[in-house]
Parts: sequence; structure tokens; C-alpha cells
Amino acid sequence: MTSSSVFGLKLVHLDLKGAPPKVSYLAEVFPLFHSLGANGLLIEYEDMFPYEGELKGLRTQYAYSPSEIKEILKLAKLHSLEVIPLVQTFGHLEFVLKHKAFSHLREVKRFPNGLNPHKEGSLNLIQAMIDQVLALHPGIRWFHIGADEVYYLGEGEESKKQLQQEMITVEKLFLSHLHAVASYVISSYPAVTPVVWDDMLRNTSNETLTESGVAQLVEPMIWDYVSDLDVDNKILLLEKYKKCGFSKLWIASAFKGATGVNQSLTHIGHHVENHLRWLKVASRQPADFLQGIALTGWQRYDHFSVLCELLPVGIPSLAVCLQTLANDCCSEKVKDAVKNHLQMSHLEIDTFMSESSGSFPGSDVLALVTQVTFLKMTVEEFLEKNRYVIGWFSPYHRKRRILHPIMSHHIQPDALSLLSKLNNVKQELQVALERIYYPDAIEEWLEENVYPVIQRLQELVNDLDKVLKSQS
Amino acid sequence: MTSSSVFGLKLVHLDLKGAPPKVSYLAEVFPLFHSLGANGLLIEYEDMFPYEGELKGLRTQYAYSPSEIKEILKLAKLHSLEVIPLVQTFGHLEFVLKHKAFSHLREVKRFPNGLNPHKEGSLNLIQAMIDQVLALHPGIRWFHIGADEVYYLGEGEESKKQLQQEMITVEKLFLSHLHAVASYVISSYPAVTPVVWDDMLRNTSNETLTESGVAQLVEPMIWDYVSDLDVDNKILLLEKYKKCGFSKLWIASAFKGATGVNQSLTHIGHHVENHLRWLKVASRQPADFLQGIALTGWQRYDHFSVLCELLPVGIPSLAVCLQTLANDCCSEKVKDAVKNHLQMSHLEIDTFMSESSGSFPGSDVLALVTQVTFLKMTVEEFLEKNRYVIGWFSPYHRKRRILHPIMSHHIQPDALSLLSKLNNVKQELQVALERIYYPDAIEEWLEENVYPVIQRLQELVNDLDKVLKSQS
Repeated sequence: MTSSSVFGLKLVHLDLKGAPPKVSYLAEVFPLFHSLGANGLLIEYEDMFPYEGELKGLRTQYAYSPSEIKEILKLAKLHSLEVIPLVQTFGHLEFVLKHKAFSHLREVKRFPNGLNPHKEGSLNLIQAMIDQVLALHPGIRWFHIGADEVYYLGEGEESKKQLQQEMITVEKLFLSHLHAVASYVISSYPAVTPVVWDDMLRNTSNETLTESGVAQLVEPMIWDYVSDLDVDNKILLLEKYKKCGFSKLWIASAFKGATGVNQSLTHIGHHVENHLRWLKVASRQPADFLQGIALTGWQRYDHFSVLCELLPVGIPSLAVCLQTLANDCCSEKVKDAVKNHLQMSHLEIDTFMSESSGSFPGSDVLALVTQVTFLKMTVEEFLEKNRYVIGWFSPYHRKRRILHPIMSHHIQPDALSLLSKLNNVKQELQVALERIYYPDAIEEWLEENVYPVIQRLQELVNDLDKVLKSQS
Repeated sequence: MTSSSVFGLKLVHLDLKGAPPKVSYLAEVFPLFHSLGANGLLIEYEDMFPYEGELKGLRTQYAYSPSEIKEILKLAKLHSLEVIPLVQTFGHLEFVLKHKAFSHLREVKRFPNGLNPHKEGSLNLIQAMIDQVLALHPGIRWFHIGADEVYYLGEGEESKKQLQQEMITVEKLFLSHLHAVASYVISSYPAVTPVVWDDMLRNTSNETLTESGVAQLVEPMIWDYVSDLDVDNKILLLEKYKKCGFSKLWIASAFKGATGVNQSLTHIGHHVENHLRWLKVASRQPADFLQGIALTGWQRYDHFSVLCELLPVGIPSLAVCLQTLANDCCSEKVKDAVKNHLQMSHLEIDTFMSESSGSFPGSDVLALVTQVTFLKMTVEEFLEKNRYVIGWFSPYHRKRRILHPIMSHHIQPDALSLLSKLNNVKQELQVALERIYYPDAIEEWLEENVYPVIQRLQELVNDLDKVLKSQS
């Protein structure tokens, strides 16, 4: 069995809940996705979808317009990428429930993550969201209804009452809402099959799961992004779902955004290992049991967290992972193919590359983020480890403007040179980012990753200036 | 040959240029020094000496009074500790040359470290300092005239001229001033032998050194504080000095203050290794060639640098080093003896102790500095590595007062608990330090080691408060 039959669909996940790319950039990467072996997209819109009417408030400032959505779908079709939209319908509804207009629908009053499944307005809201998204996605075959990590379910007032009085469980609460959402999709859009993240089903007993009837409604997407994925355990989990009546499954791996909440560079080796193990799991499944695999590329851990790796930064990893799937393994052949596709002279799998070459859409962003990241480490080492800085220009000295005059010669030239380098790279990166991203994402990435270290260094330089002025 | 004969004198170095202890604390530790095997003190006064008359400006705020000096000498005698005072006479005169009144005597105008040996006022100044110190130290046998690390010698205008015109070398410039200072000591105080740090002599040719005549005037103190001391090379260096006419030598090891400019805890193993290697060197010297060993305990790297390990923190290391010398080696016997002397239930040589027991003068300071140091690491890890802090409460979030309400539950309790612990330990440490130190040293140590991290944590707590208030 070749991998192309193991995974009918190979979806690249576009996580738009952070740093959503401009459509012009998507137009550049879709052909690359296709040529690397992808044949689909899992588009997680979050607040980038042009919600209308009473949902208009859910849009973020730079949300795509309806015509941009049409453009994205046209481009996807042009490059043979089947689109599956993803809309959260239970947990991770922070982008909805943070708004005052919807906060009454929270399961727990203080927490904007999960929906209260007991309120009538909750299902109405989800149905409205589904309807609006589906209206702009005619002809789709699958629709991903999310539903992962429904934290604090069961801790709302109504839930607690039900859990006490009716002797039901949190699992059943979950399955009941899932059933309602999936039924709505199927009844309203008979040609569309709902897909759901599997984590809330994993620990549910086979009996409860079977009895719930969801197996006849949804296709679970089993996700795991670790590099030491337990193949045997995963096979058992897939068997469990089969036993419970699910006839089709999906798998979700990761090519970026899964190794650290504030990760700026992608460690390709981690993700390759994740894919290799998923390949082993897949090779031991019955034919046609697996619909496909989504290569997730998380852009944030949730709506409120910092950005992790930007899409262009993760492209070499995506390329290696897609080629690994296409070739059923990892080898020099895969590396060569990727270097060829991305026109990279050099490709490191097992370490972070300290320099990045390549010529692909966004390769300049990768090169500059790499520069910034390594420069930042140098600056942090300078501020925290340089013996002259820590020994002769400590907070104590700086507060009192004391400095051994000799030491300014050991500190100032390095400080000024690093500051100038940092500012230059920041400037170049800003320009490179502007081609791909909207202003808010650029500002956020720079504030999270560059401004704090520039500020610390600038403060050191300013304090040095002050002392030197007072000494002269 | 037993070590007691290898090293006639075993001097504990009191580096008073940072955190000088109150006399009451010296009264507590002198008996301990004696019982551990020391029989002398090398007292580096720096700005703690009660200079008078035109030198009065050299005193620091809490300089000892003449009667305190007498008290120190009385206490030393009482506990059989021979005192050798140390006064810098060439380099490391920052505490003198930083003052406007003496800045015209700098070798290089901008740098307050080294004396200009060509100015008549320079020798006058040194002679006045020597006279004042000697006047308060009747009956001493040795006087240490420092003279290490005379950086930038030869870079002053007069030096440069001489170096060009008279074809002399920087080595000769150094030896000439050393000769003048030593001659002054010997002619004025015939019973006193000057001791000098050896580093400025090391690379001088045998011929130049021999011809200079300093071998008949001074006894070099060969210093090296590293753990991987090159025994064979050191033996060659001692032979070189012998060949050049020096009839007596000293050795200087270190028990603290030699492993990091801002070190707060002492790594005993490093210093034991240093002593074991010096023992090897000493065991291969002719009888009576070595006068003794000074166990240095640096308190700063120079007048302008931060404080390194406080004296009470270094006492277990001092104890192990002295006992190593007394027993000619390191063994369980040494460890047991030290545990006995210091009433410590537990003693780690090869790692930093994360907890410190013991009952000796200043053992509370050691215990609290240990607590602070480890707590600081925990706080720094919390601020820089905790996934909730870095992922959900980054500078970006804090500036904009954005926070996932769930995350405050993951951050706030830990932040408050750490802050309270830090403040408590700081408070206790402050009280413990007040028994031993003057206010300026306490303030400095806390500002260098505790306040910055308290401030960072407090700012996080404040920012959290602000966000939570704005959310409620």
C-alpha cells in the first residue's frame, strides 16, 4: 500500500486565529502545497470569517471579505486543494464568548472558552455560524465542527444540577451537544459529513460512545503532535473507534505550532518523527478506513495566547512532512526533493538552522526570523552573561550611575553594535512581513519577539550614555 | 614533610574592599579561623583604613576607626593570627585615583586604576599611605604592597615618551616603581619585608628580573585560583623566581570570590581542587623556600565591580580548604572535621548545596543566601519559562491588558506565593546581615541579588491585578 492510498486526503491546516495571511500570499503558497503533495486544506477561520448580521461582531478588524473567501476557494480549486472549513461549535469559542453580546452563553460565567449546551441560544448561535460559513462554501463534502478541549464542561450551574439530579456524566453532556450540532449539519446539508476532533471521545467508554449514536453522524479526527507518538496505543484507539461504530476516521499530525507556545522557529525533526509514526499507525489500518490526514500548523494555542511559528517559517517543515507522506518514509530522497522544491541549498532536520537559504514564498521571512531569533539569543546572553555587564554595570551601578571608566570600553561597542543589528533586522523583517500579513499581526509578532529585547538593550545603552556624560 | 611545615604561615585573606564585616563579627570568626588551622591574616584594607590628614578623603563611610584597627589586631593576636596588612601601591588604586584630589596621578587620564610612576606626587602618596598603615601595625614582619594587574601601564604620556626615547620596556617601568616602593618600606621599616603579587613579574625575562634588584627587596606571592592549576608549569615558575634571586616565596590560593564576578554561593569543590594542586606544587619545593600560603577570599573583582560571595557564605569552603592543607589532602576525614567544626549535618563538596545547615558565625546568612539564590532561580524560571506566563501574559498582553480569564488561575497563585516567599526571605536575610555588615553593604547586596527579581515579579503581579480589575 502506498501512502497516497493510506491517506486519500492530505490537508494543510490553515490556522487563521493568529497572523492570517493576505489572500495574495495564499495565492503564492497554494501551488507549492499542491506540488509538495497536498490535495486539500483545512481552513480554521475563527474571527477571520466575514460573519454577517447579528454575528458581525465576531469579525476581527482584517477579516476576509466574502469576495476574498470566494477568491481563496477559487485558488484552492485551481490547485486541486479540496477545502474543509473548520468552525468551533463547543469549546475554544473564546473569539465568540469574549464578546459581551454572547457572554451569557458561557458554560462558566468567568470563562470565555466553552459554550453552555443547556441554553437555547447556544445551538441557535452555532447553527447561525454554520449556516453563514456553509453559504460561502457550496459543494463541500466535509465540515469540521471542532469540539476539542471543552474545558470546564459540567461546571456551569445548569450542568451541575443535571449531573447531580439525573445521574448523567460529563461525557454524556458532551455527546448530547455534539449529536445536536452534527444532526443539524446533516439534516440541513445532507451532502456534508461533519468531522470532529477526537480528544473528548478518547476516554469515553465504548458503551456510552456506541449508545450515543454519534458514530453514525461524524468522522473523528484523531490528533497527536508529539514526536514519540505511541504507535501501538494509537492503533488500539483507532480500533476502539471502529468498534464503537465509526466507519471512517481522520488523522491529524502537525508540521508547526506544536512544540512551544511561543516558538519562533520550527524544529523539523520533531514533526518528521510525528509523521513517521503516524505512517506506521496508518499502514496497519484496513483499506479505506482512513479518510485522510490533516497536517496541522497551529498559529496560536488558543485565541488569547501568543503567536507561535509563522506560516512561512513552517514551510520547510511542511514540505518535509508532505514529502515524507508521499514517499512513505524519510530519506535523503525526501531531503533532496524538498531542497529542490524550495530551492534551499541547505536543509537541517535535527537542529534549528542558524541561517536559512531558499527561494519560496515567504523565504525572506524565514531567513529574517531566523536572524532575529539567533540575534536575540546573542543579546540575551550579552545582557545576562557578559561578565562586564553583570559584574560592572549591574542594576545597582545603573541606578547610582557608577561605572569603572575602563568598563565602558568593554561594554559600549558591543551594546551599540548589537542594538544596531537588531534594529536593522527588525526593520527588514517588518518590510518582509508587510507583504504577507496585516498590520495587527506584524505589530503583535514584533512586540512578542523583538521589542522587549530591543528595549532592554536600548535601556542599557541609555544608562551607559548617562553615566558617561556624568563622567566627562 | 607534613603540610604544616610546607606552609609555615596559613593566612586567611580578608578582602575589605567590599562588604567589610563589623569588628564584632571578626571577633566571632577569628577563633574559628584558628581552630581550623589558620595562623595568620592578610588584611586588604582598601578604603576601610582610617586614613588621616590629606588622605582622609580615601576613607569610606563606614571605615574602621583607629581603635577598631587596634581591636582587630588585639583579637588576631589573641587567636594566634599573625597580621599582614595589604596596601595597593601601583595598580588597583581605583579607591584612591577615583577621587578628584588624586586623579592627576593617574597613568592614563581617563582610567582610575593605575598610578603614574613618573609623577613625584605618586611615590609621596604611596609613602604616606604606607606610613599611616604601618603606624597602626607595630611589630609586623611582612607588609603586602599589592602591585598586581597594573593595566595600561606604559600608556600614559610620560611613559610613552620614555618607552620611545629610552628604549626601555613596560616591564622595566614596572620594576622601577616596585623597587622604589619596596626600598622605601625596607629603609623606613627595616624589620618589615615587602610582599608583592607576582603576576607582573611572570613574563619578565630572567635577565631583566635579576638585574632589577627587586629579588633582594621583596617576596613574591604567586597567585592562581583555578581548579585545573597546571602543577608542572607552576613548579617551573617557582624555579624561575629562585633562579632570579628570590630566596623566599609565598603562594596564594582562593577559598571564594574566584569563580564568577557575581557569584553568590561558593562551589567548594573548585577551591579544594585548587588547594590540592597547590599542595602538589609545594611538596616539590626545597625546605623553607615557601613562607606560607594566603587563602584569598575575594569580595569584589575590583573596587567598581559587584559583590561576590559574602564571607559567611565562604566559610564552609574556607574550612574545607584549611583542613585540606592541615591534612595534606582531601578525604572523608577532612569532611568530618569540617562538619564537626561548623556543626553541619550535611556538607556537599561537588555541587552547590540547595539547603544549608550548620551553626557557626554567620551560618544564618549562608542558609538565607542559599534560600534566596535557589528561590531566585525558581522565580526566573517562572518568569521566563512558565508556559502560562510566556504564552498568555507576554509583554504584548500586559501592555494591552489582555488575558484569558482562565490563565489568571494558572499564573496568579504561583506569582503571589513566590513573591511572598521572596519578600520573607529578603526580610530575614536583611536582619541576619545587619548583625555582620554595615548598611551600605547590605543595601548593595540586596540591590544586586534580590531587588531586581522582586521588582520583575512585583510588576507581573501588578499587571495581573490591573487586568483582573478591568475584567471584573
